[in-house]
Amino acid sequence: MSNRWGNSADERDPLAPGAGAGTPSGGEPEVVAGADFHLELTGEGTLREQVMRALRHAIGSGRLPPGTRLPPYRSLARDLGIALNTVGEAYGELVAEGWLTARQGSGTRVAQRSTPLPPDRSRRSAPPVRHPAFDLMPTSPDAAAFPRSAWQTSSRRALNAAPNDAFGVGDPRGRVELRTALTEYLARARGVHTSPHRIVICAGFAHALSMLGQVLKGEVAVESYGLDFHRSLLAAAGRRTIPLSVDARGAVIDELSTTPAGAVLLTPAHQFPTGGPLHPERRAAVVDWARANGGLVIEDDYDGEFRYDRQPVGAVQGLDPDRVVYIGSVSKSLSPALRIGWMAVPDHLVGDLLAAKGPRELWTGALEQLALADFIACGAYDRHLRRMRLNYRRRRDQLVAALRAKAPHIGIGGIAAGLHAVLDLPPGTESAAVRAASRQGLALDGLAAYRHPDSDMPPRDGLVIGYGTPPDHAFESALRALCLALPDPV
Amino acid sequence: MSNRWGNSADERDPLAPGAGAGTPSGGEPEVVAGADFHLELTGEGTLREQVMRALRHAIGSGRLPPGTRLPPYRSLARDLGIALNTVGEAYGELVAEGWLTARQGSGTRVAQRSTPLPPDRSRRSAPPVRHPAFDLMPTSPDAAAFPRSAWQTSSRRALNAAPNDAFGVGDPRGRVELRTALTEYLARARGVHTSPHRIVICAGFAHALSMLGQVLKGEVAVESYGLDFHRSLLAAAGRRTIPLSVDARGAVIDELSTTPAGAVLLTPAHQFPTGGPLHPERRAAVVDWARANGGLVIEDDYDGEFRYDRQPVGAVQGLDPDRVVYIGSVSKSLSPALRIGWMAVPDHLVGDLLAAKGPRELWTGALEQLALADFIACGAYDRHLRRMRLNYRRRRDQLVAALRAKAPHIGIGGIAAGLHAVLDLPPGTESAAVRAASRQGLALDGLAAYRHPDSDMPPRDGLVIGYGTPPDHAFESALRALCLALPDPV
Repeated sequence: MSNRWGNSADERDPLAPGAGAGTPSGGEPEVVAGADFHLELTGEGTLREQVMRALRHAIGSGRLPPGTRLPPYRSLARDLGIALNTVGEAYGELVAEGWLTARQGSGTRVAQRSTPLPPDRSRRSAPPVRHPAFDLMPTSPDAAAFPRSAWQTSSRRALNAAPNDAFGVGDPRGRVELRTALTEYLARARGVHTSPHRIVICAGFAHALSMLGQVLKGEVAVESYGLDFHRSLLAAAGRRTIPLSVDARGAVIDELSTTPAGAVLLTPAHQFPTGGPLHPERRAAVVDWARANGGLVIEDDYDGEFRYDRQPVGAVQGLDPDRVVYIGSVSKSLSPALRIGWMAVPDHLVGDLLAAKGPRELWTGALEQLALADFIACGAYDRHLRRMRLNYRRRRDQLVAALRAKAPHIGIGGIAAGLHAVLDLPPGTESAAVRAASRQGLALDGLAAYRHPDSDMPPRDGLVIGYGTPPDHAFESALRALCLALPDPV
Repeated sequence: MSNRWGNSADERDPLAPGAGAGTPSGGEPEVVAGADFHLELTGEGTLREQVMRALRHAIGSGRLPPGTRLPPYRSLARDLGIALNTVGEAYGELVAEGWLTARQGSGTRVAQRSTPLPPDRSRRSAPPVRHPAFDLMPTSPDAAAFPRSAWQTSSRRALNAAPNDAFGVGDPRGRVELRTALTEYLARARGVHTSPHRIVICAGFAHALSMLGQVLKGEVAVESYGLDFHRSLLAAAGRRTIPLSVDARGAVIDELSTTPAGAVLLTPAHQFPTGGPLHPERRAAVVDWARANGGLVIEDDYDGEFRYDRQPVGAVQGLDPDRVVYIGSVSKSLSPALRIGWMAVPDHLVGDLLAAKGPRELWTGALEQLALADFIACGAYDRHLRRMRLNYRRRRDQLVAALRAKAPHIGIGGIAAGLHAVLDLPPGTESAAVRAASRQGLALDGLAAYRHPDSDMPPRDGLVIGYGTPPDHAFESALRALCLALPDPV
C-alpha cells in the first residue's frame, strides 16, 4: 500500500523548512513534502502500527523535515484506503511520543527540532555509502531476517532479570551471564572447550584481533587470501603479516615452519574467501606446530554455524584450548548491528588480554549482552540458526541452479558452508567480470581484492559471491544480473 | 525477604558439582548450595517474578553451579513465606527458559552447561574487581536508578519501528534517528548548535578522545587536574599533553598562548575534579584563542545535565561550532553500561573523524542507538534527568549537612553541579585521609591521583567524593564512614 503526495508549499508558515520548494497554494491546509514522497505500509502489526512506523521512519530519516505539515486524516485515510480513525489514532500517538505537534487551526506537523546550521560541507566531503541495486559482498547476513520478536522477548526478560550492577561500570570480561551461556553453546555447537573465566566479550572480530595484535609479539602468519581489513588491523598494532599458501585443503600449514611467525590466523571451518574447510591432517599439524614452537593459533570462526550438507566441522580450539584463541561473533549469525563478539582464550593469555582491554568495559553494552545471554539460553539462537540454515541453503541451491542453467562453464567452489561461494573464472577475465558486474548494479569483489600483497601463489581468477545479504524478494533478480555479468565460454 | 539454606551434599548424584562439600545425608531430597547461600527477593513485579529473578541471578553469577539441586517447592515456599504454587510456577518457567532441568524422581536442578576445565590460573592472575563497602569514586551514577520500564518501552518501540537496514552493516556516523534526536536535545538542554550531519556516535568519551587523538596533530593542553586515563589515551595516540593551571575560575586560559598546543581539552561545565564552572571571560577567551591560532577546543561535557542551584551553564560549543568539538555520553546521565556517546564536530573535521572510525560501525550497537533515540524523543530522557537531579541534589545536601555537623572544619567545593564534591584538607593530610578512608571500607581518591605529573601548580590537598554511585539505602552509612576518615581539626 502506498500513496504519493504532491509537492506544494505552505505560505502561511514560512518557518517550515519544506516551504518554498514548490507551487504556492492558499485555501485548504496542504501537505508539504518532497516531490516523490510516498508512505509505504509494511511489516507486522495493526494498520495503526504500520502507519505510525512508516511516519516515524519518514521523520527519522529526514524525508519529512521538521515543520512539515501532514495531510489531514481524511486525505491520508483515503489515499491509503484505510479507516479515518486509524489515521487519527496514529497521529494522536505520534503527538504523544513527540514526533508530531498538533495545534488548533494549523494542523498536524512534524515536531521542530533545532535551528538549521548553514549547509554542511561534510555532506559532500563524506557522502553516505552508495547502495548498489544488489549487494553480493560477503559482509552481512539477511538484515530482513532478524528475529525481532524473539529478540524483544529476550531483551525484556533480560532487563527484568538484570541485577542492579548491570547498570554500573562493567567488568571488561563481559557479563558473566553471557560468558556462561556461551560456554555451554560453544561446547555443544562448535566443540569449543572453555569456561566462563576464559571468555572475553568484545565488540566483534575486528576488536578481538586488535587486542590480540597488542598482546602478541613478532609476526603473524595469515592465509594468502583473506580480508585486507584484518591484515590492516594487525599492521596497525605493529604486527607484520606473512602469507601462507591456500589450496583445496585450506592453508598450507607446512609453510609455517619456514617463517618466523609466532602466531597464525586461520579460518578453519570455511576458508575465507576461497571456501574449503581446513583438512583434518592440517588441523592436527597446526596444533603440533603451536605445541612445538610455543606458537598461538587464532581461529576466526566467522560462519561456523552454517554448514549445509553434513555435520558442522568442530572448532580447532577443541584440540588444544591452551594453544588456540577462538573468536566468534553474532555478525554473521544474527546481525552485524549488535556489535557483540567473544574470544575463548588460553588461560595464560586472559590476564594480558584484559590488560589490553583496560580496567572497565568501554565497548559492549551490558543490556545487549544480557539479552543475547537469554536469547542463547532459552533456545531462540538455535531456532534462529536452524531457520537461517534452511534459508541460506535454499539460496545456495538457487545460485547453483542458476549457474548450471545459464553459465554451465563456470565452476563453483566453497558451497558446502557459509554465506558465500567462489565462481572460478578463466585466467585473465576477473577484472573485466568485476566491471561487468558493477554495470549490472552488483556490488561484489574478485579474488584479487582479498589477496595478500606479499603472496607468491600463482594468481587465481574468481568472483566472491555473498548470497546472504540480499532480501529474499531481490535474490532472483540479483542472480539474473550476476549471470549477465559472467564471461562467455572460451 | 531472605532464607538461608544449609550446606549438605547429595550422595545420590556424584556429578553435582556442589556434592562432597558438606555433610552426607540420605532420605529426603536436599539442597546443595554454598554454606552461605541465601535467596533475596527484591525489586519490582510479582512474587513469582521476584523468585525467578533471584534464582536466575544466583545461577548466572555462579552461586548455584550446574547440577545443584534446588529445594523442593514446599521448603522454599515455607522459607520465603510465600504460596506453594508461586514457587512451582517460578520453577516451571525457569525450566522452560533452560535455567533449570526437572526430571521425575531427581527433583529440580540447575541445568548442566559444559564439562568443567581444569581450574583456571587466570582466576587468580586477574581477580574480579574488589568491591569496597562504599564506592565514593566519581565514576558511575546510581545503578539502581536506571529507568528500566521506560527504557523497555523505548526499546520495544524502537525495535518495532526499525527499518530492516538497522540490522545490516552500520553507518559509522551512527543511526540518523539518534543523531536527529540529539541535535534537538543538545540544542535545547545544552545550547549546542549542530546538525545530524555533524554528529558522530561513539561508544563513550574514551572512544571519542582516542579518535580525536588520531586526527589531531601536535600537542594537547589539558587541565592540571583531570583523569589520568584521558591523558593516557591521548599519549597512546601520540599526543603529548601540557598541563594548564586550574583555579577557582577553571582552567587558566591565558597560559595557552605560552604553549605550542594546537588543541585544548576542557571540562567547562564543572571542572573535573576540582568542581567550578569555567568563568564566562575564560569561555570567551578560549574561543578567541582557537580563532586566532587555528586551534581546537575539546569540550568534555561529562555531567552538564546536573546543576542544582541555578540554570545549567550552556556548552562552550554554542559560542563557535566550528572551533569546538563537543563530547557527551549517557555514562553519567543514564548508565555507563550502555556504551553510547556522541561528538558534535566542526564541519571540517567530520571527514577525518569518520576516516579514523573506519568505513563501518564497529562499536556501538544499532538497536541501543534506536532505543536511545526514542527515549530522548519521547521525553523519557528529560523526565529521568529531572528525577535524578532531585535525587543527587538531595544526596549533595545530605553530604553537606553531615560534614557541617561532624567535620565543620572541612571546606567543601564543587557542589553547585555534578555527581561529586571536593573536600579541602589541611596541607599534608591527604594521603593519610585516603588510607583512613580505605580502612573504613570507602573507595575514594585524593586530588593527587588526578594531578598531571608535569603540573607546576602548588599541590592542593583534598578528597574527591563521588556521591552518585552508592545506592540510596547505603548512602547514610557511607557518609558516616566518610566523616570517621576525615582528619581532626588542627
